Amino acid sequence: MSKSTDELFKNVISHAKEYGFVFPSSEIYDGLSAVYDYGQNGAELKNNIKTYWWKAMVQMNDNIVGIDSAIFMHPKIWKASGHVDGFSDPMIDNKDSKKRYRADQLLEDKIAKYDSEGKTDKAEQLQHDMDEALKAEDLTRLRDLIIEHEIACPVSGTRNWTEVRQFNLMFSTQMGAVADDADTIYLRPETAQGIFVNYLNVQKSGRMKIPFGIAQIGKAFRNEVIARQFIIRMREFEQMEMQFFVRPGTQKEWFDQWKAARLKWHLALGTDAAKYRYHEHTKLAHYADAAYDIEFEFPFGFKEVEGIHSRTNFDLSQHEKFSGKKLQYFDPEVDPETGKPYGNYVPYVIETSIGLDRMFLLTMINAYEEEDLSTEDKQDSRTVLRLHPCLAPVKAAIFPLTKKDGLPEKAREIMDKLKLDFNIQYEEKDAIGKRYRRQDAIGTPFCITVDHQTLEDNTVTIRHRDSMAQERVPADQLDKIIGDLVSWRNVLS
Amino acid sequence: MSKSTDELFKNVISHAKEYGFVFPSSEIYDGLSAVYDYGQNGAELKNNIKTYWWKAMVQMNDNIVGIDSAIFMHPKIWKASGHVDGFSDPMIDNKDSKKRYRADQLLEDKIAKYDSEGKTDKAEQLQHDMDEALKAEDLTRLRDLIIEHEIACPVSGTRNWTEVRQFNLMFSTQMGAVADDADTIYLRPETAQGIFVNYLNVQKSGRMKIPFGIAQIGKAFRNEVIARQFIIRMREFEQMEMQFFVRPGTQKEWFDQWKAARLKWHLALGTDAAKYRYHEHTKLAHYADAAYDIEFEFPFGFKEVEGIHSRTNFDLSQHEKFSGKKLQYFDPEVDPETGKPYGNYVPYVIETSIGLDRMFLLTMINAYEEEDLSTEDKQDSRTVLRLHPCLAPVKAAIFPLTKKDGLPEKAREIMDKLKLDFNIQYEEKDAIGKRYRRQDAIGTPFCITVDHQTLEDNTVTIRHRDSMAQERVPADQLDKIIGDLVSWRNVLS
Repeated sequence: MSKSTDELFKNVISHAKEYGFVFPSSEIYDGLSAVYDYGQNGAELKNNIKTYWWKAMVQMNDNIVGIDSAIFMHPKIWKASGHVDGFSDPMIDNKDSKKRYRADQLLEDKIAKYDSEGKTDKAEQLQHDMDEALKAEDLTRLRDLIIEHEIACPVSGTRNWTEVRQFNLMFSTQMGAVADDADTIYLRPETAQGIFVNYLNVQKSGRMKIPFGIAQIGKAFRNEVIARQFIIRMREFEQMEMQFFVRPGTQKEWFDQWKAARLKWHLALGTDAAKYRYHEHTKLAHYADAAYDIEFEFPFGFKEVEGIHSRTNFDLSQHEKFSGKKLQYFDPEVDPETGKPYGNYVPYVIETSIGLDRMFLLTMINAYEEEDLSTEDKQDSRTVLRLHPCLAPVKAAIFPLTKKDGLPEKAREIMDKLKLDFNIQYEEKDAIGKRYRRQDAIGTPFCITVDHQTLEDNTVTIRHRDSMAQERVPADQLDKIIGDLVSWRNVLS
Repeated sequence: MSKSTDELFKNVISHAKEYGFVFPSSEIYDGLSAVYDYGQNGAELKNNIKTYWWKAMVQMNDNIVGIDSAIFMHPKIWKASGHVDGFSDPMIDNKDSKKRYRADQLLEDKIAKYDSEGKTDKAEQLQHDMDEALKAEDLTRLRDLIIEHEIACPVSGTRNWTEVRQFNLMFSTQMGAVADDADTIYLRPETAQGIFVNYLNVQKSGRMKIPFGIAQIGKAFRNEVIARQFIIRMREFEQMEMQFFVRPGTQKEWFDQWKAARLKWHLALGTDAAKYRYHEHTKLAHYADAAYDIEFEFPFGFKEVEGIHSRTNFDLSQHEKFSGKKLQYFDPEVDPETGKPYGNYVPYVIETSIGLDRMFLLTMINAYEEEDLSTEDKQDSRTVLRLHPCLAPVKAAIFPLTKKDGLPEKAREIMDKLKLDFNIQYEEKDAIGKRYRRQDAIGTPFCITVDHQTLEDNTVTIRHRDSMAQERVPADQLDKIIGDLVSWRNVLS
């Protein structure tokens, strides 16, 4: 990470806190590692991102519906999905410091060290050896590499290591109060399974015909060993997932379609297309027959924001096996080859899965600008969040020019009409210029000033965030002016 | 519960499942006790209730903002709030069946039994004795009452009971992967504490002046021993809470104001006022100096839907004590009595707390009607959900009269315009009458039929859910007709 992008990222994080977007969780208790709270502007921005996704997926597609399944699910579900046995990281403990590390992380740090020392050959060799070991799930080999490359514990400085063991990332808890057999259940590590186990209920009660999709937004939990980079990797996070159920054999065409549609969703917000790229998975998960990430260029490099996965019929078939229930769909469409209906089958699934918190961070970083406004006469600057108006937490701020002469009353009268439709803020403290800066910092598209002329002719000054241009408009046109700019129609199509 | 209301409740539950509102969680695995999933119509209805609350609280009040704090919080928070030590139920085990029961629940069942046998004196005496024991937190006395009244385990039939012990209702889990000290943390049992620990961050970054409020919608978890009555008491549930921070001494007036405002919010949906009532708490929680419930008449009787609590400065003071951080607000307003600013103090808090799932059930029950449509000639009926149009999952359904002559294409063309603004459904299967019934069952306010005349003059038939009246209107007026009826302006003021 170069100096300047490193600084940019730090500035965004402190901006996020200073302006009520993201607070460290439980801060007065010195925080809770890798957990964050969304403040008053963050909650609005996050809600707007959710709304955009929900409208684009559910409202715009009459063959996609949304559900809201519980975080608590039957524990067998995670057995069927493979999470109980396979959802783990390779861990190693240092016997002296008692600290635990991810074995692959220790090796990656070493590779980075080799690189920084110019030992490119060594770095490449170790990368290759590690990849082989991870692929083969060879824990002994991972440990051998740590020993061979003389990696020491950063805390104790010793190389006194335990064996490498798998550590499951699911949080577990006990449900029920029955004396002898409270059940161990898990906090879901992904929302997708809530869709799979409900797919027939939704299909039948909603009379859905293949192809159709089920969408969901909700919390998921992973006990990450090393959680870092602000809200990029959290232990509690939120996903927006859609599972699209298709006829076997058609998954390739639907995969391509969703891959394109999802990137289009991102770009509709006006983000520079050069900041996005596809990344194809070469090593596929056991359930997938194709997978692409949509990556965004964060200050610390390109990073996954969304995954599009062709999950085959793996999950549904596993649930058939573990639940003992038939999860087949009857397809009445006639197969042109056989002249008969396609009949019963377990559908194939295309998944689109986006991390809401990452999308939030992407949005903040992409919008954040420290803009130099200096002229020949005077140094000046502002920090502005160039959020898409649809996503802005506050749609307009209303300022009486002064606190007297009935201007506050007039400003509130205008606000009381607008607030029926939009999230509006009222501010009367400090000079107008200062108030503009505060609204720029939270991305408010419009500032509306009520002055003495307003009392005469009911016109107001409207100031645009991006251009900083001001114009005089009749107060009774505000609803339309704001409405046109923040309408969801601008990003849906 | 009388036979007919009992049946009504059962019908609502099965209707909720049949039409995609609420499914038992993990149903293909035979369910998970006291956990439910919201289906495609339930998720929309629930989202609409959330939106209504958020708009009424946050958007309409410029001194209230919303946040979204994490479910995971620092464990000390629950020590400070009293939940670690005090959030528990008195439990007793039967030594033969190994079954565990809530001691007070066993006694209440006995009281009900006395009542049903006409032994009113005995019922009253036991009620009185139990209340005394609970008030004094006298666990030995609770056990003695169970023995005295010869209460047997419904499973084993024996009276071989253990001592009564307190059982904490919080779910716990282990966070972190460090070898020796993974931390025990809790799933929050209420969202309120997330507001308290963030109150100064919000106040400062949002420049809030007292009185001001912080609102939040989110999941909470309680390991209820006996969870029952469908989604009335769940182990995973969702709350909509608002904490209003006021100057000490003014809490009474703000309490009265919020008590009135919250009932008004319920009634703005058009619900019969006779179905609501206030219930004053006579036995106050340790942190409260006033508390009222808003109760709704469910088929099984009046039941709490929302609580309005004057929580004093208890929580903030506790967090000061346990975190060691000052949580005072500086009030610059001048006290007319002393002529000096009020200065530093820990604010008092008025809380409004509503169970989202209960509100959902209330809405379903209140809207559900099995309507007799019989005429002299013919028996007929329908099941209709008379949901407020703002809350309806689907705002309009579009039907081509037949599947040919270009009617489906025309219907889709109209839908493609409307879906930019509303959640629209398209249906072409079965006779129009049947399609009307299916939309009635999910509460869709409008059904729009496209017929041959539409192709000529671009008019459609619009049929109203409640009156079942039909009228012919130009297709290009649909956006306005639907928009006017489902506008949030109709319930906000």
